[in-house]
Amino acid sequence: MSETTTTVVRPPLNGVDVPTLFATLNAVKETPEIAKFRFRARNTWEGGTHSRSEFSGFYGAMQEIQHNHVTEVHADHPAVLVGADHAPTPVEFLLHAIAACLTAGIGNIAAARGIPLHHISSTVEGDVDLLGILGLSDEVRNGYRSMKVTFTIAGDADADTLRGLVEQSRRRSAVYDALTNPTPVEIEVVTH
Amino acid sequence: MSETTTTVVRPPLNGVDVPTLFATLNAVKETPEIAKFRFRARNTWEGGTHSRSEFSGFYGAMQEIQHNHVTEVHADHPAVLVGADHAPTPVEFLLHAIAACLTAGIGNIAAARGIPLHHISSTVEGDVDLLGILGLSDEVRNGYRSMKVTFTIAGDADADTLRGLVEQSRRRSAVYDALTNPTPVEIEVVTH
Repeated sequence: MSETTTTVVRPPLNGVDVPTLFATLNAVKETPEIAKFRFRARNTWEGGTHSRSEFSGFYGAMQEIQHNHVTEVHADHPAVLVGADHAPTPVEFLLHAIAACLTAGIGNIAAARGIPLHHISSTVEGDVDLLGILGLSDEVRNGYRSMKVTFTIAGDADADTLRGLVEQSRRRSAVYDALTNPTPVEIEVVTH
Repeated sequence: MSETTTTVVRPPLNGVDVPTLFATLNAVKETPEIAKFRFRARNTWEGGTHSRSEFSGFYGAMQEIQHNHVTEVHADHPAVLVGADHAPTPVEFLLHAIAACLTAGIGNIAAARGIPLHHISSTVEGDVDLLGILGLSDEVRNGYRSMKVTFTIAGDADADTLRGLVEQSRRRSAVYDALTNPTPVEIEVVTH
């Protein structure tokens, strides 16, 4: 028997264009510079605790790229925290970010592994004691004490295989890393 | 001269109801249980790397509270990352979260200090090398290498005073803490 290399070419699955996904991986392997991305948001104060951010584009794959459409997202504090509740709070967007990041990963990984999925949903909870941000305690942290993501997932695979998708997504999640490990944040101020 | 206690009662300013803000602080001082909040998001997979989150309410001030309106926010990967670019990426929402959190804090702190502000805007940039999430390097982290928030701020105060508002907001920011320090994230999976 001669040694052969078998390449499994997976078809598109779960709404993921798997051939293009693997082609992208191969392109990045050859030119790692492609993988350097800079994401951006532009935020404007609307008064009180209300502001809005605009996402128009980013740098990646060695070029400036525009999103298909510009997205505007607002944030505010709720009435109970003396805001006008025009929109969810800033910390609630962290819950969206981690759920969306893990879910996108699960979709991609299942497709790459040839596993059809029927459903992914999740509930994310973040517990925070506001004694920190209100300046009433130096022992209580400002951010979430803890976050919990509970996934419900259904697909053509046994429970262990489905759990394996979530675990692999966690291992490769940008937002999971950004939250569970320290991210350096620099703040610069220009005054007028 | 007799000793007196002077209480400065600040009027509403910058869209912030300062008397209510201080009343809230006093209420929390007396009943710290008020400060325990649990925020929530419910995320649903739409296929591929696209999902949406719904924010309807949260627990806080010892009760379940509904937002004024339910907000739905989508996320997706861009075409260059084999997504359909229906919405910003999950990591871009981290940029919104930190800008909105710091900005709300600046508004509140300026009002509490009696400083009228005319303008706050910011640009947030996050640099990420996707060799991590693509599984092509074990040395590159999955999340942002670094984030940078650049504020432009104008108000009736000198530059040092305006910078002091941003610095105090950073010191009390929930999202700044969540990103710059480790946040424990638990993941649970229910399969069907």
